[in-house]
Amino acid sequence: MLLYNDLFLNKEEVHISHEDRGYYFGDGVYEVFRIYNGKIFETEKHLQRLKRSCEEIQIQFPYTIEEINDKLLQLVQKSFVHEGTLYLQITRGVAPRSHVIPKDIKPVVLAYCNEVNRPLDKMQSGIKAITQEDIRWLRCDIKSLNLLPNTLAKQNAVNHSAEETIFHRDGVITECSASNIMIVHDGEIHTHPVNHLILNGVTRAVVLKLAAKAGFPIKEHPFDLKQLNRADEVFITGTTVEITPIISIDQLIVSDGKPGKITRELQNLYEKLITS
Amino acid sequence: MLLYNDLFLNKEEVHISHEDRGYYFGDGVYEVFRIYNGKIFETEKHLQRLKRSCEEIQIQFPYTIEEINDKLLQLVQKSFVHEGTLYLQITRGVAPRSHVIPKDIKPVVLAYCNEVNRPLDKMQSGIKAITQEDIRWLRCDIKSLNLLPNTLAKQNAVNHSAEETIFHRDGVITECSASNIMIVHDGEIHTHPVNHLILNGVTRAVVLKLAAKAGFPIKEHPFDLKQLNRADEVFITGTTVEITPIISIDQLIVSDGKPGKITRELQNLYEKLITS
Repeated sequence: MLLYNDLFLNKEEVHISHEDRGYYFGDGVYEVFRIYNGKIFETEKHLQRLKRSCEEIQIQFPYTIEEINDKLLQLVQKSFVHEGTLYLQITRGVAPRSHVIPKDIKPVVLAYCNEVNRPLDKMQSGIKAITQEDIRWLRCDIKSLNLLPNTLAKQNAVNHSAEETIFHRDGVITECSASNIMIVHDGEIHTHPVNHLILNGVTRAVVLKLAAKAGFPIKEHPFDLKQLNRADEVFITGTTVEITPIISIDQLIVSDGKPGKITRELQNLYEKLITS
Repeated sequence: MLLYNDLFLNKEEVHISHEDRGYYFGDGVYEVFRIYNGKIFETEKHLQRLKRSCEEIQIQFPYTIEEINDKLLQLVQKSFVHEGTLYLQITRGVAPRSHVIPKDIKPVVLAYCNEVNRPLDKMQSGIKAITQEDIRWLRCDIKSLNLLPNTLAKQNAVNHSAEETIFHRDGVITECSASNIMIVHDGEIHTHPVNHLILNGVTRAVVLKLAAKAGFPIKEHPFDLKQLNRADEVFITGTTVEITPIISIDQLIVSDGKPGKITRELQNLYEKLITS
Protein backbone atom coordinates (compact mmCIF):
# COMPACT_ATOMS: atom_id res chain seq x y z
CA MET A 1 0.00 0.00 0.00
CA LEU A 2 1.44 3.34 -1.10
CA LEU A 3 0.24 6.89 -0.96
CA TYR A 4 0.91 8.27 -4.44
CA ASN A 5 -0.22 11.87 -4.75
CA ASP A 6 -3.83 11.70 -3.55
CA LEU A 7 -4.34 7.99 -4.11
CA PHE A 8 -3.76 4.88 -2.06
CA LEU A 9 -2.39 2.31 -4.49
CA ASN A 10 -0.79 -1.09 -4.57
CA LYS A 11 2.91 -1.26 -5.38
CA GLU A 12 2.24 -2.53 -8.91
CA GLU A 13 0.00 0.43 -9.65
CA VAL A 14 2.64 3.08 -8.94
CA HIS A 15 4.50 4.17 -12.07
CA ILE A 16 7.04 6.95 -11.74
CA SER A 17 7.58 9.06 -14.82
CA HIS A 18 11.10 9.09 -16.21
CA GLU A 19 10.55 12.85 -16.42
CA ASP A 20 10.04 13.17 -12.67
CA ARG A 21 12.69 15.67 -11.58
CA GLY A 22 13.33 13.42 -8.63
CA TYR A 23 14.69 10.88 -11.09
CA TYR A 24 16.79 13.31 -13.18
CA PHE A 25 18.10 15.65 -10.52
CA GLY A 26 17.25 14.22 -7.09
CA ASP A 27 15.06 17.31 -7.02
CA GLY A 28 13.01 16.51 -3.94
CA VAL A 29 12.94 16.13 -0.18
CA TYR A 30 11.92 13.39 2.23
CA GLU A 31 11.29 12.29 5.79
CA VAL A 32 11.43 8.96 7.61
CA PHE A 33 8.99 8.68 10.51
CA ARG A 34 8.96 6.07 13.28
CA ILE A 35 5.80 4.12 14.00
CA TYR A 36 5.48 2.85 17.55
CA ASN A 37 2.41 0.91 18.60
CA GLY A 38 0.62 1.88 15.38
CA LYS A 39 1.18 5.59 15.97
CA ILE A 40 3.52 8.01 14.20
CA PHE A 41 6.18 9.40 16.56
CA GLU A 42 6.86 13.16 16.56
CA THR A 43 4.77 13.72 13.41
CA GLU A 44 4.62 17.47 13.83
CA LYS A 45 8.42 17.89 14.06
CA HIS A 46 8.97 15.77 10.93
CA LEU A 47 6.28 17.55 8.93
CA GLN A 48 7.54 20.97 9.92
CA ARG A 49 11.04 19.97 8.83
CA LEU A 50 9.67 18.60 5.55
CA LYS A 51 7.85 21.86 4.92
CA ARG A 52 11.04 23.78 5.66
CA SER A 53 13.05 21.54 3.28
CA CYS A 54 10.48 22.28 0.57
CA GLU A 55 10.66 26.00 1.21
CA GLU A 56 14.46 26.03 1.11
CA ILE A 57 14.47 24.58 -2.41
CA GLN A 58 11.29 26.38 -3.49
CA ILE A 59 9.01 23.38 -3.82
CA GLN A 60 5.41 24.36 -3.19
CA PHE A 61 4.37 22.27 -0.17
CA PRO A 62 1.33 20.56 -1.66
CA TYR A 63 -0.76 20.25 1.50
CA THR A 64 -1.43 21.91 4.79
CA ILE A 65 0.25 20.15 7.70
CA GLU A 66 -3.22 18.94 8.78
CA GLU A 67 -4.01 17.49 5.34
CA ILE A 68 -0.77 15.55 4.99
CA ASN A 69 -0.99 14.42 8.60
CA ASP A 70 -4.46 13.05 7.91
CA LYS A 71 -3.22 11.19 4.82
CA LEU A 72 -0.32 9.66 6.74
CA LEU A 73 -2.66 8.45 9.50
CA GLN A 74 -4.83 6.80 6.85
CA LEU A 75 -1.74 5.22 5.29
CA VAL A 76 -0.60 3.73 8.60
CA GLN A 77 -4.09 2.34 9.22
CA LYS A 78 -4.40 0.86 5.74
CA SER A 79 -0.89 -0.63 6.02
CA PHE A 80 -1.54 -2.37 9.35
CA VAL A 81 1.96 -1.47 10.51
CA HIS A 82 2.39 -1.70 14.26
CA GLU A 83 6.10 -1.10 14.69
CA GLY A 84 7.96 0.28 11.73
CA THR A 85 8.82 3.24 9.58
CA LEU A 86 6.95 5.58 7.29
CA TYR A 87 8.84 6.96 4.30
CA LEU A 88 7.52 10.13 2.68
CA GLN A 89 9.08 12.01 -0.21
CA ILE A 90 8.04 14.97 -2.30
CA THR A 91 9.67 15.67 -5.64
CA ARG A 92 9.25 18.90 -7.57
CA GLY A 93 7.19 17.18 -10.24
CA VAL A 94 7.21 15.96 -13.83
CA ALA A 95 8.56 18.03 -16.74
CA PRO A 96 10.93 17.66 -19.70
CA ARG A 97 14.51 17.76 -18.42
CA SER A 98 15.77 21.30 -17.86
CA HIS A 99 17.85 22.70 -15.01
CA VAL A 100 15.54 25.72 -14.84
CA ILE A 101 12.58 25.11 -12.55
CA PRO A 102 9.38 24.91 -14.62
CA LYS A 103 6.49 27.16 -13.70
CA ASP A 104 3.22 25.64 -12.46
CA ILE A 105 4.81 22.25 -11.87
CA LYS A 106 2.88 19.93 -9.56
CA PRO A 107 4.83 18.10 -6.82
CA VAL A 108 4.79 14.30 -6.72
CA VAL A 109 4.13 12.75 -3.31
CA LEU A 110 5.07 9.19 -2.42
CA ALA A 111 4.74 7.51 0.96
CA TYR A 112 4.61 4.00 2.36
CA CYS A 113 5.08 2.11 5.62
CA ASN A 114 7.29 -0.83 6.44
CA GLU A 115 7.18 -3.14 9.43
CA VAL A 116 10.65 -2.64 10.97
CA ASN A 117 11.73 -3.84 14.39
CA ARG A 118 13.61 -1.58 16.74
CA PRO A 119 17.37 -2.36 16.60
CA LEU A 120 17.38 -3.60 20.20
CA ASP A 121 20.50 -5.78 19.84
CA LYS A 122 22.58 -2.95 18.42
CA MET A 123 21.22 -0.49 20.96
CA GLN A 124 22.30 -2.97 23.64
CA SER A 125 25.72 -3.99 22.33
CA GLY A 126 26.71 -0.94 20.31
CA ILE A 127 28.11 -0.76 16.80
CA LYS A 128 31.41 -0.08 15.05
CA ALA A 129 32.03 3.08 13.05
CA ILE A 130 34.65 4.53 10.76
CA THR A 131 35.52 8.16 10.07
CA GLN A 132 35.65 9.86 6.71
CA GLU A 133 36.02 13.36 5.27
CA ASP A 134 32.62 15.03 4.88
CA ILE A 135 32.51 15.84 1.16
CA ARG A 136 28.79 16.63 0.96
CA TRP A 137 27.34 19.91 -0.22
CA LEU A 138 27.06 22.83 2.17
CA ARG A 139 23.28 22.63 2.74
CA CYS A 140 23.08 19.43 4.79
CA ASP A 141 20.24 21.08 6.74
CA ILE A 142 17.97 20.34 3.75
CA LYS A 143 16.77 16.73 3.81
CA SER A 144 17.04 16.32 0.05
CA LEU A 145 17.13 13.29 -2.24
CA ASN A 146 20.73 14.10 -3.25
CA LEU A 147 22.00 11.25 -1.09
CA LEU A 148 24.76 9.74 -3.21
CA PRO A 149 27.59 10.74 -0.81
CA ASN A 150 25.59 9.36 2.11
CA THR A 151 25.01 5.99 0.45
CA LEU A 152 28.67 5.75 -0.60
CA ALA A 153 29.77 6.56 2.95
CA LYS A 154 27.42 3.96 4.43
CA GLN A 155 28.74 1.38 1.97
CA ASN A 156 32.28 2.35 2.91
CA ALA A 157 31.44 1.56 6.55
CA VAL A 158 30.13 -1.87 5.52
CA ASN A 159 33.29 -2.46 3.47
CA HIS A 160 35.24 -1.90 6.69
CA SER A 161 33.05 -4.27 8.74
CA ALA A 162 31.42 -1.28 10.45
CA GLU A 163 27.86 0.04 10.43
CA GLU A 164 28.12 3.79 10.30
CA THR A 165 30.47 6.45 8.95
CA ILE A 166 31.25 9.51 11.06
CA PHE A 167 31.83 12.57 8.89
CA HIS A 168 34.39 15.25 9.70
CA ARG A 169 35.00 18.46 7.80
CA ASP A 170 38.69 19.35 8.08
CA GLY A 171 38.75 17.39 11.33
CA VAL A 172 35.54 18.85 12.81
CA ILE A 173 32.90 16.17 13.43
CA THR A 174 29.61 17.06 11.76
CA GLU A 175 27.28 14.03 11.78
CA CYS A 176 27.08 10.52 10.30
CA SER A 177 25.94 9.14 6.95
CA ALA A 178 22.38 8.70 8.25
CA SER A 179 22.36 9.89 11.86
CA ASN A 180 23.54 12.62 14.21
CA ILE A 181 26.39 12.02 16.65
CA MET A 182 27.00 12.98 20.27
CA ILE A 183 29.94 12.36 22.57
CA VAL A 184 30.19 12.39 26.35
CA HIS A 185 33.31 13.85 27.95
CA ASP A 186 33.65 14.33 31.71
CA GLY A 187 29.89 14.01 32.10
CA GLU A 188 29.15 16.65 29.44
CA ILE A 189 27.30 15.91 26.20
CA HIS A 190 28.84 17.48 23.10
CA THR A 191 27.22 17.68 19.67
CA HIS A 192 27.61 19.80 16.54
CA PRO A 193 25.36 22.88 16.59
CA VAL A 194 22.42 23.06 14.20
CA ASN A 195 23.52 24.91 11.07
CA HIS A 196 23.98 24.26 7.33
CA LEU A 197 26.49 21.45 7.98
CA ILE A 198 24.15 18.97 9.67
CA LEU A 199 20.57 17.82 9.54
CA ASN A 200 18.51 19.17 12.42
CA GLY A 201 17.65 15.67 13.64
CA VAL A 202 14.26 15.04 15.21
CA THR A 203 15.73 12.35 17.47
CA ARG A 204 18.69 14.64 18.19
CA ALA A 205 16.27 17.29 19.50
CA VAL A 206 14.28 14.75 21.53
CA VAL A 207 17.47 13.37 23.10
CA LEU A 208 18.84 16.82 23.95
CA LYS A 209 15.53 17.69 25.60
CA LEU A 210 15.60 14.48 27.65
CA ALA A 211 19.25 15.10 28.56
CA ALA A 212 18.55 18.66 29.66
CA LYS A 213 15.59 17.52 31.75
CA ALA A 214 17.79 14.87 33.37
CA GLY A 215 20.31 17.55 34.26
CA PHE A 216 23.17 16.55 31.97
CA PRO A 217 25.24 19.52 30.80
CA ILE A 218 25.00 19.94 27.00
CA LYS A 219 27.41 21.77 24.72
CA GLU A 220 26.15 22.30 21.18
CA HIS A 221 29.47 23.29 19.66
CA PRO A 222 31.87 21.82 17.11
CA PHE A 223 34.29 19.17 18.39
CA ASP A 224 37.09 17.51 16.48
CA LEU A 225 38.56 14.07 15.75
CA LYS A 226 40.89 14.29 18.75
CA GLN A 227 38.00 14.97 21.11
CA LEU A 228 36.05 12.14 19.48
CA ASN A 229 38.93 9.74 20.09
CA ARG A 230 39.25 10.84 23.74
CA ALA A 231 35.48 10.64 24.42
CA ASP A 232 34.17 8.61 27.36
CA GLU A 233 31.05 7.73 25.38
CA VAL A 234 29.96 8.07 21.77
CA PHE A 235 26.49 7.48 20.43
CA ILE A 236 24.40 8.25 17.36
CA THR A 237 20.80 9.38 17.24
CA GLY A 238 18.25 8.89 14.50
CA THR A 239 14.68 7.90 13.75
CA THR A 240 15.45 4.23 13.17
CA VAL A 241 18.65 3.84 15.22
CA GLU A 242 17.13 5.77 18.18
CA ILE A 243 20.14 6.02 20.53
CA THR A 244 22.80 3.55 19.43
CA PRO A 245 26.21 3.43 21.14
CA ILE A 246 29.40 3.48 19.09
CA ILE A 247 31.88 1.09 20.67
CA SER A 248 34.75 1.32 18.21
CA ILE A 249 35.93 3.97 15.74
CA ASP A 250 38.39 3.14 12.98
CA GLN A 251 39.09 -0.13 14.81
CA LEU A 252 40.02 1.68 18.03
CA ILE A 253 37.87 0.81 21.04
CA VAL A 254 35.86 3.67 22.59
CA SER A 255 36.56 3.88 26.34
CA ASP A 256 36.20 0.30 27.71
CA GLY A 257 34.40 -0.91 24.59
CA LYS A 258 31.01 -0.99 26.27
CA PRO A 259 28.06 1.40 25.92
CA GLY A 260 28.51 4.20 28.49
CA LYS A 261 26.49 5.11 31.56
CA ILE A 262 24.96 8.32 30.24
CA THR A 263 24.16 6.64 26.90
CA ARG A 264 22.28 3.94 28.85
CA GLU A 265 20.43 6.50 30.93
CA LEU A 266 19.35 8.41 27.81
CA GLN A 267 18.23 5.13 26.22
CA ASN A 268 16.07 4.43 29.28
CA LEU A 269 14.53 7.90 29.17
CA TYR A 270 13.88 7.51 25.43
CA GLU A 271 12.30 4.11 26.03
CA LYS A 272 9.96 5.64 28.59
CA LEU A 273 9.02 8.44 26.21
CA ILE A 274 8.12 6.22 23.26
CA THR A 275 6.21 3.71 25.36
CA SER A 276 4.35 6.36 27.36
CA MET B 1 11.17 6.62 -28.57
CA LEU B 2 13.27 5.69 -25.54
CA LEU B 3 15.93 3.15 -24.86
CA TYR B 4 14.92 1.54 -21.56
CA ASN B 5 17.36 -1.16 -20.54
CA ASP B 6 17.49 -3.36 -23.64
CA LEU B 7 14.21 -2.25 -25.17
CA PHE B 8 13.17 0.55 -27.49
CA LEU B 9 9.85 1.79 -26.12
CA ASN B 10 7.37 4.61 -26.52
CA LYS B 11 7.24 7.20 -23.76
CA GLU B 12 3.97 5.79 -22.39
CA GLU B 13 5.49 2.34 -22.02
CA VAL B 14 8.34 3.43 -19.74
CA HIS B 15 7.48 3.01 -16.06
CA ILE B 16 10.16 3.80 -13.52
CA SER B 17 9.96 1.91 -10.25
CA HIS B 18 9.58 4.02 -7.13
CA GLU B 19 12.27 1.73 -5.75
CA ASP B 20 14.78 2.78 -8.40
CA ARG B 21 17.73 4.11 -6.40
CA GLY B 22 17.91 6.93 -8.90
CA TYR B 23 14.61 8.12 -7.51
CA TYR B 24 15.46 7.71 -3.80
CA PHE B 25 19.10 8.74 -3.75
CA GLY B 26 20.00 10.22 -7.12
CA ASP B 27 22.15 7.10 -7.23
CA GLY B 28 23.18 7.21 -10.85
CA VAL B 29 25.22 8.93 -13.55
CA TYR B 30 24.47 10.45 -16.93
CA GLU B 31 25.74 12.00 -20.14
CA VAL B 32 24.32 14.44 -22.66
CA PHE B 33 25.60 13.92 -26.20
CA ARG B 34 25.29 16.30 -29.16
CA ILE B 35 23.83 15.08 -32.44
CA TYR B 36 25.03 16.95 -35.52
CA ASN B 37 23.77 15.95 -38.92
CA GLY B 38 22.28 12.74 -37.53
CA LYS B 39 25.59 11.66 -35.99
CA ILE B 40 26.66 11.57 -32.33
CA PHE B 41 29.54 13.96 -31.65
CA GLU B 42 32.53 12.72 -29.60
CA THR B 43 30.74 9.51 -28.60
CA GLU B 44 33.87 7.80 -27.36
CA LYS B 45 34.83 10.63 -24.97
CA HIS B 46 31.32 10.73 -23.47
CA LEU B 47 31.10 6.97 -23.08
CA GLN B 48 34.54 6.74 -21.49
CA ARG B 49 33.53 9.46 -19.03
CA LEU B 50 30.25 7.66 -18.30
CA LYS B 51 32.16 4.46 -17.64
CA ARG B 52 34.50 6.33 -15.32
CA SER B 53 31.55 7.92 -13.45
CA CYS B 54 30.10 4.43 -12.96
CA GLU B 55 33.40 3.09 -11.69
CA GLU B 56 33.86 5.97 -9.25
CA ILE B 57 30.55 5.16 -7.53
CA GLN B 58 30.87 1.40 -8.05
CA ILE B 59 28.04 0.92 -10.52
CA GLN B 60 28.70 -2.06 -12.75
CA PHE B 61 28.84 -0.59 -16.27
CA PRO B 62 26.19 -2.76 -17.91
CA TYR B 63 27.65 -2.89 -21.43
CA THR B 64 30.88 -2.80 -23.30
CA ILE B 65 31.55 0.58 -24.92
CA GLU B 66 30.84 -1.06 -28.29
CA GLU B 67 27.49 -2.46 -27.14
CA ILE B 68 26.18 0.80 -25.73
CA ASN B 69 27.52 2.70 -28.73
CA ASP B 70 25.58 0.36 -31.00
CA LYS B 71 22.39 0.89 -28.99
CA LEU B 72 22.77 4.67 -29.11
CA LEU B 73 23.27 4.61 -32.87
CA GLN B 74 20.06 2.59 -33.20
CA LEU B 75 18.27 5.06 -30.92
CA VAL B 76 19.34 8.06 -33.02
CA GLN B 77 18.20 6.29 -36.19
CA LYS B 78 14.84 5.26 -34.73
CA SER B 79 14.32 8.79 -33.35
CA PHE B 80 14.95 10.52 -36.68
CA VAL B 81 16.85 13.30 -34.91
CA HIS B 82 19.05 15.32 -37.22
CA GLU B 83 20.27 18.08 -34.93
CA GLY B 84 19.74 17.61 -31.24
CA THR B 85 20.79 15.97 -28.02
CA LEU B 86 20.94 12.46 -26.67
CA TYR B 87 20.39 11.99 -22.95
CA LEU B 88 21.65 8.78 -21.34
CA GLN B 89 21.52 7.87 -17.68
CA ILE B 90 22.36 4.79 -15.70
CA THR B 91 21.03 4.30 -12.18
CA ARG B 92 22.27 1.63 -9.81
CA GLY B 93 19.01 -0.27 -10.05
CA VAL B 94 15.84 -1.22 -8.21
CA ALA B 95 15.81 -2.37 -4.59
CA PRO B 96 14.00 -1.64 -1.32
CA ARG B 97 15.33 1.63 0.11
CA SER B 98 18.58 1.17 2.02
CA HIS B 99 21.72 3.31 2.05
CA VAL B 100 23.84 0.18 1.78
CA ILE B 101 24.41 -0.84 -1.82
CA PRO B 102 22.53 -4.08 -2.53
CA LYS B 103 24.48 -7.00 -3.98
CA ASP B 104 23.65 -8.28 -7.46
CA ILE B 105 21.61 -5.21 -8.32
CA LYS B 106 21.00 -4.61 -12.05
CA PRO B 107 21.55 -1.08 -13.40
CA VAL B 108 18.67 0.72 -15.10
CA VAL B 109 19.51 2.38 -18.41
CA LEU B 110 17.43 5.17 -19.92
CA ALA B 111 18.19 7.14 -23.07
CA TYR B 112 16.35 9.29 -25.56
CA CYS B 113 16.97 11.92 -28.22
CA ASN B 114 15.51 15.38 -28.65
CA GLU B 115 15.55 17.66 -31.66
CA VAL B 116 17.38 20.73 -30.33
CA ASN B 117 18.71 23.59 -32.41
CA ARG B 118 22.17 24.97 -31.82
CA PRO B 119 21.96 28.18 -29.74
CA LEU B 120 23.24 30.30 -32.61
CA ASP B 121 21.74 33.58 -31.37
CA LYS B 122 23.30 33.25 -27.94
CA MET B 123 26.61 32.12 -29.41
CA GLN B 124 26.51 35.26 -31.55
CA SER B 125 25.36 37.84 -29.02
CA GLY B 126 26.58 36.32 -25.76
CA ILE B 127 24.72 35.80 -22.49
CA LYS B 128 24.57 37.30 -19.00
CA ALA B 129 25.85 35.45 -15.96
CA ILE B 130 25.89 35.81 -12.21
CA THR B 131 28.38 34.48 -9.67
CA GLN B 132 27.61 32.35 -6.64
CA GLU B 133 29.47 30.38 -3.98
CA ASP B 134 30.08 26.78 -5.12
CA ILE B 135 28.38 24.74 -2.38
CA ARG B 136 28.37 21.41 -4.24
CA TRP B 137 29.99 18.24 -2.97
CA LEU B 138 33.70 17.66 -3.48
CA ARG B 139 33.40 15.08 -6.27
CA CYS B 140 32.18 17.30 -9.11
CA ASP B 141 34.29 15.16 -11.45
CA ILE B 142 31.56 12.49 -11.22
CA LYS B 143 28.66 13.29 -13.54
CA SER B 144 26.04 12.10 -11.06
CA LEU B 145 22.29 12.64 -10.79
CA ASN B 146 22.77 14.61 -7.55
CA LEU B 147 22.06 17.85 -9.39
CA LEU B 148 19.94 19.79 -6.93
CA PRO B 149 22.56 22.52 -6.31
CA ASN B 150 23.05 22.87 -10.07
CA THR B 151 19.35 23.30 -10.77
CA LEU B 152 18.99 25.80 -7.90
CA ALA B 153 21.95 27.78 -9.21
CA LYS B 154 20.57 27.82 -12.75
CA GLN B 155 17.22 29.00 -11.42
CA ASN B 156 19.02 31.69 -9.42
CA ALA B 157 20.55 32.96 -12.67
CA VAL B 158 17.11 33.12 -14.27
CA ASN B 159 15.77 34.97 -11.21
CA HIS B 160 18.47 37.59 -11.89
CA SER B 161 17.63 37.86 -15.61
CA ALA B 162 20.77 35.92 -16.47
CA GLU B 163 21.33 32.55 -18.12
CA GLU B 164 24.18 30.92 -16.26
CA THR B 165 25.70 30.90 -12.79
CA ILE B 166 29.48 30.97 -12.39
CA PHE B 167 30.57 29.04 -9.29
CA HIS B 168 33.47 30.09 -7.09
CA ARG B 169 34.85 28.25 -4.09
CA ASP B 170 36.17 30.82 -1.62
CA GLY B 171 36.70 33.16 -4.57
CA VAL B 172 38.33 30.62 -6.90
CA ILE B 173 36.30 30.10 -10.08
CA THR B 174 35.53 26.43 -10.65
CA GLU B 175 32.90 26.07 -13.38
CA CYS B 176 29.24 26.93 -14.05
CA SER B 177 25.94 25.28 -13.15
CA ALA B 178 25.93 23.30 -16.40
CA SER B 179 29.11 24.25 -18.28
CA ASN B 180 32.84 24.87 -17.93
CA ILE B 181 34.26 28.39 -18.01
CA MET B 182 37.34 29.95 -19.61
CA ILE B 183 38.67 33.48 -19.56
CA VAL B 184 41.09 35.27 -21.88
CA HIS B 185 43.61 37.68 -20.37
CA ASP B 186 46.37 39.28 -22.44
CA GLY B 187 45.86 36.69 -25.15
CA GLU B 188 46.14 33.75 -22.75
CA ILE B 189 43.32 31.29 -22.08
CA HIS B 190 42.80 30.43 -18.41
CA THR B 191 40.61 27.64 -17.08
CA HIS B 192 40.35 25.60 -13.88
CA PRO B 193 42.47 22.43 -13.99
CA VAL B 194 40.75 19.07 -14.16
CA ASN B 195 40.37 17.72 -10.64
CA HIS B 196 37.61 16.79 -8.17
CA LEU B 197 36.17 20.34 -8.23
CA ILE B 198 34.99 20.41 -11.85
CA LEU B 199 33.56 18.12 -14.48
CA ASN B 200 36.13 17.13 -17.08
CA GLY B 201 34.07 18.63 -19.90
CA VAL B 202 34.13 16.98 -23.31
CA THR B 203 33.64 20.35 -25.04
CA ARG B 204 36.25 21.86 -22.69
CA ALA B 205 38.78 19.28 -23.92
CA VAL B 206 37.83 19.80 -27.57
CA VAL B 207 38.16 23.59 -27.22
CA LEU B 208 41.53 23.37 -25.46
CA LYS B 209 42.79 21.10 -28.24
CA LEU B 210 41.60 23.54 -30.91
CA ALA B 211 43.13 26.46 -28.98
CA ALA B 212 46.47 24.71 -28.63
CA LYS B 213 46.50 23.83 -32.33
CA ALA B 214 45.76 27.49 -33.16
CA GLY B 215 48.72 28.54 -31.02
CA PHE B 216 46.89 30.24 -28.15
CA PRO B 217 48.72 29.95 -24.83
CA ILE B 218 46.65 27.96 -22.31
CA LYS B 219 46.94 28.01 -18.54
CA GLU B 220 44.99 25.28 -16.77
CA HIS B 221 45.24 26.72 -13.29
CA PRO B 222 42.81 28.20 -10.74
CA PHE B 223 41.89 31.85 -11.22
CA ASP B 224 39.78 34.01 -8.93
CA LEU B 225 36.87 36.45 -9.00
CA LYS B 226 39.21 39.43 -9.44
CA GLN B 227 40.83 37.87 -12.50
CA LEU B 228 37.37 37.01 -13.82
CA ASN B 229 36.27 40.62 -13.47
CA ARG B 230 39.43 41.89 -15.21
CA ALA B 231 39.21 39.37 -18.08
CA ASP B 232 39.30 40.55 -21.69
CA GLU B 233 36.99 37.72 -22.71
CA VAL B 234 34.86 35.19 -20.85
CA PHE B 235 33.12 32.20 -22.37
CA ILE B 236 31.53 28.94 -21.33
CA THR B 237 31.86 25.56 -23.01
CA GLY B 238 29.44 22.67 -22.99
CA THR B 239 27.76 20.06 -25.14
CA THR B 240 24.67 22.14 -25.85
CA VAL B 241 26.05 25.67 -25.38
CA GLU B 242 29.18 24.82 -27.43
CA ILE B 243 31.24 28.03 -27.00
CA THR B 244 28.99 30.80 -25.68
CA PRO B 245 30.41 34.21 -24.75
CA ILE B 246 29.58 35.79 -21.38
CA ILE B 247 29.03 39.51 -21.91
CA SER B 248 28.05 40.55 -18.41
CA ILE B 249 28.72 39.17 -14.94
CA ASP B 250 26.68 40.29 -11.93
CA GLN B 251 25.38 43.16 -14.10
CA LEU B 252 28.92 44.40 -14.86
CA ILE B 253 29.84 44.41 -18.54
CA VAL B 254 32.76 42.18 -19.59
CA SER B 255 35.33 44.21 -21.53
CA ASP B 256 33.37 46.18 -24.20
CA GLY B 257 30.26 44.05 -23.78
CA LYS B 258 30.81 42.17 -27.01
CA PRO B 259 32.06 38.62 -27.61
CA GLY B 260 35.87 38.73 -27.82
CA LYS B 261 38.21 38.05 -30.71
CA ILE B 262 39.67 34.79 -29.41
CA THR B 263 36.20 33.55 -28.45
CA ARG B 264 35.09 34.21 -32.04
CA GLU B 265 38.11 32.43 -33.47
CA LEU B 266 37.51 29.40 -31.29
CA GLN B 267 33.83 29.38 -32.31
CA ASN B 268 34.92 29.34 -35.96
CA LEU B 269 37.32 26.47 -35.36
CA TYR B 270 34.61 24.56 -33.48
CA GLU B 271 32.15 25.20 -36.29
CA LYS B 272 34.61 23.76 -38.80
CA LEU B 273 35.18 20.70 -36.63
CA ILE B 274 31.52 19.81 -36.19
CA THR B 275 30.63 20.40 -39.83
CA SER B 276 33.68 18.56 -41.18
